[in-house]
Amino acid sequence: MQWQQHLRIILAGPRNPLNIGAAARAMLNFGFGELWLVDPYPPAFREARSAVGAQDVLRRAKVTSDLAEALGESSLVVATSVLRARSEPHVRRMLPDGAPVLRTHLATRPAALVFGCEKFGLSSEQLSFCDWILTIPTGEDCPSMNLGQAVALCCYEIARRARPVPALRTPATADAAQRERIVEMLTPILEAGGYLLPNTRGSQLKKVRRWVGRLRLAPADARMMQGMLRQVRWKVEHP
Amino acid sequence: MQWQQHLRIILAGPRNPLNIGAAARAMLNFGFGELWLVDPYPPAFREARSAVGAQDVLRRAKVTSDLAEALGESSLVVATSVLRARSEPHVRRMLPDGAPVLRTHLATRPAALVFGCEKFGLSSEQLSFCDWILTIPTGEDCPSMNLGQAVALCCYEIARRARPVPALRTPATADAAQRERIVEMLTPILEAGGYLLPNTRGSQLKKVRRWVGRLRLAPADARMMQGMLRQVRWKVEHP
Repeated sequence: MQWQQHLRIILAGPRNPLNIGAAARAMLNFGFGELWLVDPYPPAFREARSAVGAQDVLRRAKVTSDLAEALGESSLVVATSVLRARSEPHVRRMLPDGAPVLRTHLATRPAALVFGCEKFGLSSEQLSFCDWILTIPTGEDCPSMNLGQAVALCCYEIARRARPVPALRTPATADAAQRERIVEMLTPILEAGGYLLPNTRGSQLKKVRRWVGRLRLAPADARMMQGMLRQVRWKVEHP
Repeated sequence: MQWQQHLRIILAGPRNPLNIGAAARAMLNFGFGELWLVDPYPPAFREARSAVGAQDVLRRAKVTSDLAEALGESSLVVATSVLRARSEPHVRRMLPDGAPVLRTHLATRPAALVFGCEKFGLSSEQLSFCDWILTIPTGEDCPSMNLGQAVALCCYEIARRARPVPALRTPATADAAQRERIVEMLTPILEAGGYLLPNTRGSQLKKVRRWVGRLRLAPADARMMQGMLRQVRWKVEHP
C-alpha cells in the first residue's frame, strides 16, 4: 500500500460543485484518491460528479452526514483553518512545518485532513474531532483561500516530501473511531454524574472530545480505558 | 517597493472567467498584485471582473494582445509548463527548486511568470520569450493542473521564502523589452542577409529570440549590441 492511500481528504459541507471538482482534480494531480464528503449540498455533488475530469476520484468519493464516520480509522486528524483572532484550544502548525508531520504519520498509519465549508470553515464542533490545525500562510490582507486552491496547496506540500522525516516519528495512537467510542462511553457516565448539564451539554462534550484527543492514548491503553468505562457505566446504571 | 511588486503574473489566452478570478484571488492571498492578460477571451474577462473577490487585482489588471508588451521590463521571464515527452530547447526547473531562484531575482529586479491557456499551455512562439520553464511536480497519471490552482501553488512557493537566497545571486541582465528590441533590429538584417527565408521565417525567429535570451546580456552590453545593429542595418539598407 502506498503512503498516499493512507490519506483521507474530507470536505465538510461543501456547497460549490466547482470546488468539489477542483479538490478531486488536485488530489489526482498529487496521487491522492480517497475523498469523503460530509453533508455536501446535494445538487453541488451531483453537478461535480457529472463534470469532466477527476471522475475516478469523484466516483469513488464517499458521502456521509457523520464526520466521525468519515474519519474512520484515522489515527491523526488534521483540520485546516485560517488564522483567527479568537483564542482556541488547538495546536496550530503552518503548512510548511505541518505537512512533514502529516507526511511522516502517513508513512505507516492513516490520517485525515478536514476542510470546512467555503463560507464559514469548520465549526467548533467539527474542530473538536481534530488533533491540530493546519494553516496556509496567506497574507493578512486576504487570508481566506478558495477551497479548491487550499486543497491543491496542501496536497502539493504533503506530496513534495518523497520520504517521511524520521526525527518526527511519534508513537502509535488510538484512531478516530476508537476515540469517538470513548467519548460515547463517557457521555452517559458524565451525565449520570452531573458533569454534563442539559444547558451546557454541547460545549462540554466538545471539551471532553478534545481532552480525549490530547490524551494521545496508545491503542492498548484506549482498549483498557474502554474496559474501565464499561464497568463504570454498568455500576452507574445499576446502583 | 516591496519585492512582491516586482512580479508580473501573465495569463496568456485564458478562456475561463473562474480561472481568471481564481488566479487573481490566489495572487491577493500571497501579496502579489500585478496581473496581465494577453488576449483573454473577452466575455471571460468581463465575467471575471464582475465577480466578487479580488476585485482590486482584477480592476488593475492590464490587457494586451502582445506578450512582449506584457513582459515589459522584466529581466527574467519564467514560463510554466507540464513535463512533455518532446525535446525542448529550454532549461527546466521543478517548482521547489525554481521558486527560490525567481524569489532571489525579485529581491532587486522585475520578473514575469507566464501561464498558458487552459487547453494547450504555452505555444513554442510564447516559450521563445522565456528564459526557463517552471514545472509543478505532479504525478504521471494526471500531470495537467487547473490554471487557478497552478497560479496558487506558484504564488505560495515563491512567497514562502521570506528572504532571497544569497548563493543564487546572478548578474543583472537586459530586460525583456530590450531583448525584444534586439530581435526586432536583427530581423531585417537577417532577412536581407538571407538567413531568414520566407518559408521557415517563423521557426527561425523563435530560434533567434531564444539565442538572444541565452546571451544573458548585461544592460550595457545590450545597448552596445543595439548600437552595432543600428549601424549594420543602415549599411544593409543603403548598399
